[in-house]
Amino acid sequence: MSDITMIRAAAERLKGHARRTPLLNSPFIDEIAGRQVYIKPECLQHTGSFKYRGGRSAVSALDADTRARGVIAFSSGNHAQGVALAAREFGVPAVIIMPADAPQVKIDNTRALGAEVVLYDRAGGESREALGDKLTAERGLTLIRPYDEPQVIAGQGTTGLEIAEDANAIGIENADVLICCGGGGLTSGIALALEADAPTLRPRPVEPKGFDDVARSLRSGHIETNNQQSGNICDAILTPAPGQITFPILQRLCGPGLVVSEDECLRAVAIAWARLKVVAEPGGAVALAAALFHKDQIEGTAVIATISGGNVDTAMFQAALEKYGKKV
Amino acid sequence: MSDITMIRAAAERLKGHARRTPLLNSPFIDEIAGRQVYIKPECLQHTGSFKYRGGRSAVSALDADTRARGVIAFSSGNHAQGVALAAREFGVPAVIIMPADAPQVKIDNTRALGAEVVLYDRAGGESREALGDKLTAERGLTLIRPYDEPQVIAGQGTTGLEIAEDANAIGIENADVLICCGGGGLTSGIALALEADAPTLRPRPVEPKGFDDVARSLRSGHIETNNQQSGNICDAILTPAPGQITFPILQRLCGPGLVVSEDECLRAVAIAWARLKVVAEPGGAVALAAALFHKDQIEGTAVIATISGGNVDTAMFQAALEKYGKKV
Repeated sequence: MSDITMIRAAAERLKGHARRTPLLNSPFIDEIAGRQVYIKPECLQHTGSFKYRGGRSAVSALDADTRARGVIAFSSGNHAQGVALAAREFGVPAVIIMPADAPQVKIDNTRALGAEVVLYDRAGGESREALGDKLTAERGLTLIRPYDEPQVIAGQGTTGLEIAEDANAIGIENADVLICCGGGGLTSGIALALEADAPTLRPRPVEPKGFDDVARSLRSGHIETNNQQSGNICDAILTPAPGQITFPILQRLCGPGLVVSEDECLRAVAIAWARLKVVAEPGGAVALAAALFHKDQIEGTAVIATISGGNVDTAMFQAALEKYGKKV
Repeated sequence: MSDITMIRAAAERLKGHARRTPLLNSPFIDEIAGRQVYIKPECLQHTGSFKYRGGRSAVSALDADTRARGVIAFSSGNHAQGVALAAREFGVPAVIIMPADAPQVKIDNTRALGAEVVLYDRAGGESREALGDKLTAERGLTLIRPYDEPQVIAGQGTTGLEIAEDANAIGIENADVLICCGGGGLTSGIALALEADAPTLRPRPVEPKGFDDVARSLRSGHIETNNQQSGNICDAILTPAPGQITFPILQRLCGPGLVVSEDECLRAVAIAWARLKVVAEPGGAVALAAALFHKDQIEGTAVIATISGGNVDTAMFQAALEKYGKKV
């Protein structure tokens, strides 16, 4: 189970490695949102997303002998790059299992960070778990889960320590902290950090419409799943259900979830480009979209919104600019 | 005359106002550049460029009575927005004189920051200086020059204090510091700060091809001018000649200038988008372009490159992504 002690220990291990991202703001965004909005741009983190924090936290927490044998992760996205870079920094092997039909750029980027990418045939029914178990047994690798892993949650929670520190410095006391939410690793980590260091701030998960498993789980009081697992531009944060470890934390600490449309995300991507000068991926823009377009559901006089990542392909970004670049 | 004492005083006045931008880096950029590259992303500064530092420094340095009468600036670009925001923060009037044919988005953004925008007819031969003199005399406004102004240079120099602090913390001693250079306000300010706080780093101006007045002036030993003043995508940094105040500082402290093509800037814009997740305007990308594509002219084992601004229009950014977004 993750707790604030683990998060503070992770922050010590990440010092000088994870990038200390600033809080950004813009009077133009405040005007649309009708309140002060501060952005935590984890797209500026190493590998372009907050996932490096969790990857580095987990790899650095292993004992040296275990770590030397290497790590393994299932991911075609941001978690893959976060684990790959962390492993490379320690000079240990990283095996990343990806579907063979993953975008070539993601395969290339993960390989370029030194990982061994092993492809499996998703369409042909090959089991990635069986493949992973085989590799793990043969080589003595350690599996790094993307969110239901205490040291990963602790690493993501360092984002929350920074939010708390900066919010306290600016004097923000009454704010909703909107967090881009997939399996809940970032959300639960930030929630634990805020509970300790900025307890008047309210962490709240934000999800894409049709993939609101966390919002529904918070309402019903038990883990709900999504009917589908793909088919949304917010691919970076699509997960089947909140985790066994993350959900109890979310349930204890988070306010109600918010849900945004794909179109609202595209517009938030364009606004982040125009007004903050940062690159957000659609899934990384859900929290900003909620701040901008669902203001009636927000209680605080201020909002702090994470941008969780910026690993968007060229065509998708061009589509956002084409549609909303001139009317942000 | 600007000096390190003025820069440190400006830093005190800017504390809690100017954003403390981080140094960014990417293994993908290091690989292209053939050395370690660190980016100072002033596109993340308030108003989307370093110009806010100089604007805030100059406005805050005025005595209260003078400041209360208001300030005036000639600019259709980043300086306009920097001065406008600084004046608004102090609750004093800002008059910005712009050509009537300036892009509507720049007029709108400057007005949205609370400034009174006064348009003059560039084509009809109306003199902006005569217009400015008239307004200044009538209202007792103080002119804030864009670069040849000691308190503006001091404000831009705070960028250099931060570069020195971060470079010293990382242990970078042998590096070229490449600076996007127009009239030399940012370059001379950074050069003075490095001389004091990181004297082994070498400041060097970078300019667009055809507008290399500073590089030529450094070679010849006296102020050279450009033949043209427009007709380049790096519009943010096109100036007729180095300033009377900035040039002696550049001459005393800077290494040889570098010159980049428009196409290299576009490619650097795309690379900053893909690898750093920040938005650069073409003129703000000249230093990164030099780091990436003119590596034979760089001496240091490392490079620190400024991205001076990110106020690029949609069509230009789309053109950069269209041409280079898929082959960064």
